[in-house]
Amino acid sequence: MSDQAILTINAGSSSIKFSVYENGEQLHELAVGQVEKLGPNSRFVLEAPQQVTEDLGATDHASGLQAILKHLPPFLDGREVTGVGHRIVHGGPEFTKPVQLNDAVLDHLASYEPLAPLHQPYNLSAVRAAMSAFPLAVQVGCFDTAFHRGHPWEHDTYALPRRFYDQGVRRYGFHGLSYEYVSGQLARIAPDLAQGRVIIAHLGNGASMCGLKGGRSHCSTMGFSAVEGLAMGTRTGQIDPGVILYLQDHEGLSTQEVTQLIYRQSGLKGLSDESHDMRTLLASDKPEAAQAITYYITRIRHEIGGMAADLGGLDALVFTGGVGENSDVIRARICEGMGWLGLGLDQAANAAHQPEIGTGKVRIFAIPTDEEKVIARAVDRCLG
Amino acid sequence: MSDQAILTINAGSSSIKFSVYENGEQLHELAVGQVEKLGPNSRFVLEAPQQVTEDLGATDHASGLQAILKHLPPFLDGREVTGVGHRIVHGGPEFTKPVQLNDAVLDHLASYEPLAPLHQPYNLSAVRAAMSAFPLAVQVGCFDTAFHRGHPWEHDTYALPRRFYDQGVRRYGFHGLSYEYVSGQLARIAPDLAQGRVIIAHLGNGASMCGLKGGRSHCSTMGFSAVEGLAMGTRTGQIDPGVILYLQDHEGLSTQEVTQLIYRQSGLKGLSDESHDMRTLLASDKPEAAQAITYYITRIRHEIGGMAADLGGLDALVFTGGVGENSDVIRARICEGMGWLGLGLDQAANAAHQPEIGTGKVRIFAIPTDEEKVIARAVDRCLG
Repeated sequence: MSDQAILTINAGSSSIKFSVYENGEQLHELAVGQVEKLGPNSRFVLEAPQQVTEDLGATDHASGLQAILKHLPPFLDGREVTGVGHRIVHGGPEFTKPVQLNDAVLDHLASYEPLAPLHQPYNLSAVRAAMSAFPLAVQVGCFDTAFHRGHPWEHDTYALPRRFYDQGVRRYGFHGLSYEYVSGQLARIAPDLAQGRVIIAHLGNGASMCGLKGGRSHCSTMGFSAVEGLAMGTRTGQIDPGVILYLQDHEGLSTQEVTQLIYRQSGLKGLSDESHDMRTLLASDKPEAAQAITYYITRIRHEIGGMAADLGGLDALVFTGGVGENSDVIRARICEGMGWLGLGLDQAANAAHQPEIGTGKVRIFAIPTDEEKVIARAVDRCLG
Repeated sequence: MSDQAILTINAGSSSIKFSVYENGEQLHELAVGQVEKLGPNSRFVLEAPQQVTEDLGATDHASGLQAILKHLPPFLDGREVTGVGHRIVHGGPEFTKPVQLNDAVLDHLASYEPLAPLHQPYNLSAVRAAMSAFPLAVQVGCFDTAFHRGHPWEHDTYALPRRFYDQGVRRYGFHGLSYEYVSGQLARIAPDLAQGRVIIAHLGNGASMCGLKGGRSHCSTMGFSAVEGLAMGTRTGQIDPGVILYLQDHEGLSTQEVTQLIYRQSGLKGLSDESHDMRTLLASDKPEAAQAITYYITRIRHEIGGMAADLGGLDALVFTGGVGENSDVIRARICEGMGWLGLGLDQAANAAHQPEIGTGKVRIFAIPTDEEKVIARAVDRCLG
C-alpha cells in the first residue's frame, strides 16, 4: 500500500464531483462521489466504494467542498494527499496541456472567465479552496480545451474580421479530457486505428463530437462556447445568430435571458416540453418526446457527415458519455441508413453493449469515458 | 410578335435588378439590367440586349425604380406590361408558392419584416411603386422561402422551447427561386436524377446549399436568416451563438452593430482583410486571402458531408451562382479528396466549363441559374 493519494475535483455550476486514487505503481481508485444540486437542498452522494447519500441542506461551492473533505479520511486511511487535480473548463489559447497551479497561473486563468462565465469562476474557486485545505499538495489544472489546441486554423476560427481571432474568439472545443481518455483507450483496443480518421461522439447531458486524425483533435462540434454544435439536454446546439438578434430586438430578451434560454431551457428539454433526460424521453409516449429525439439524432448524423468531410473520410466512430455508452437504441438510430458512409451496426453486439459494435467498413465502438482518470494521471506525472 | 410583356423586379438593399420578357408562346428576354450602388453614386447598367452604363447620382429605391421605368419603352416597343413579378425574400410560414399581390397580401407580408429587416421592406416598397406605375398589370410575389416550406420538421426547427417554432422561429431557407430553376434544369439534363438525392450549391455573393429528395427541398444551410450556413462574401455563415453574446457583453456591441458585423464585414472580406470578391482573392498573393478561401471551401465541404447524411447518401452535386458557375478552381478545391463520398472531378470538363463535370459515382454538374426566369414564369402562369 502506498502512503500517498491523489484527489480530483470537478466543480461545475451545480455540482462538485470528486475521486480519490491511491498513487502507487498504478492509480487505484479509492472513492468516487459528488455533492449534487448545490443550493437549498444539496446532497452528498458517494458512488464508490459503496452507495451513500446524505442530505446537506443549503450548500454553496465552499461548504460543498468542505463536505467532501470531511468524508475523505476513511478512504484515505492515513494516506497523505500529495496532489490535487482540477478540471478547468477553459485554458484559453495558451494552455495546451495540464499545468501546475499557483497564484500567477490562477490570475491568468481568471482572465478567461468572460469566455466561460458559467463554469470558470467555480473551477477557480475550487482550486483556491483546495490550496488552503492541502497547502503542501501539488495542485494541477487540466483543461477541457487543451486537447483541441492543435486544430488547423480553418477549424479554429469563425468568418469574422481577423482581429476577433487575435482577441481570442476561437473554436476552443470542450470535453477534451473525455476525448483524451477515449482516444487512449481506442489506441489500446485497436492500435491500427491510431493513425486513422476517427470521430468520437461524447453524448451526455452535454454533448459534442471530436474529429481526430492520427490521435489528435482536428475539429470539434463545440466551438467558442459549450452551447454550439449538437443539441444537448438543455442546450440548443447549432442555431442561427439571426435568431439571437431577433429574440433581442423583437422579443425584448436581454443577453442574460438569452443565455438562460439557450443553455438551460432548450435542447431535448425545450423540444420535448418534458425532460432533458434521454431515458425519460425514450420511455415517453408523447409525440413531442419522439420529435425531440429525432432532432437530436438528425443533428448528430449531420455532424458525422460533416466531420467525415473535414477528415477526408472515416475509419471509426466511437460512442461515449452517458447516452453514448448506455443507450443501444440511440446508437442504432444514429447508424441507421448510414451505409453510404460505410457504417453498419452489429445489432446483437450493440444490444449486448460490446465494445466493438460495427459490421461495415467503418469500425464502430462504444467506450466508457473516465475524465477523472485523465486528471489523476496528469497529477501523477506532475508528482514525477 | 406578342403585344404583351412581363417585367420582373428584384429589389435588394443596395440594387434593383430588372428584366423584361415578351410574353408569347415562349418567354423571350427583351432586356436585363439593374440600378446598382443605390446611394450617392448610383448607376443604371443595362446588361442586355447591349451594354449601357449611365451615372444616376444620388438615387434611392423610389427614384431607382423610376430610372428603370424611364429606360423601358425602347425594349417594350409598344408592348403592354400586363404582369410584374417581384422577388420577395420572405413568405413566412404560410406562402408556399407565388401569390397575386394586393393590399391585403402586402399587409400580411409586411408582418414578416422583422424576419428579414434588411430586405423585406425594400421588396414591398418596390411592389407598391410598380402597382402605381402599372395599375392595370397583375402583380405577382415570388418568395425565396417558398421552395423550402416542405422541410421535415427536424429540418425546419431549432432546439428551442416549442413555442418559438409556433411563433415563427423556423429554418426558412432562402435562394429558393434559384433552387427551383436549377432543379428544373437538372430534371431536363438528367431526368434519371429527378427522384434522387441531390445537393445544389448556390455560391454567389450570398451562398447556401439545398438538399433535395425527389426534386423537393429537404434541408437548407440557410435557416431563420440569410446569415446562417456557409461563409459568404461579407457574411459569417455558421457561428456560435455564444460569440454573439460575448460581443455584446464584453465588447459592448449593440444588436445593430452585431448585425452590421456579421452581415457586412465578415465572411471572405473579414477573413482576407482584402475583398469579398472571390476573383480578387484568387488573384491575390496574400496569405490571408488564401486562408479565407480555405475557410470558405472547408465550410462548403463540411455541409456537403452533413447534407449527404440528411439525405441518406448522395447521387448528384450541382454548382450554381456566380462563383459556382464560373470558378473551375473553386469547384476543383471543393471536390478534392472527396472520393470517400464518391465525388470525382473530370478536370478537363471542369476547366472547359462543361455542364457535367464528374467522373465518380456521384454525378457533378455546373448549371447557370436564372431567378428572373422563374419569376417571369410565375407571372405567366398567373396571367393564364
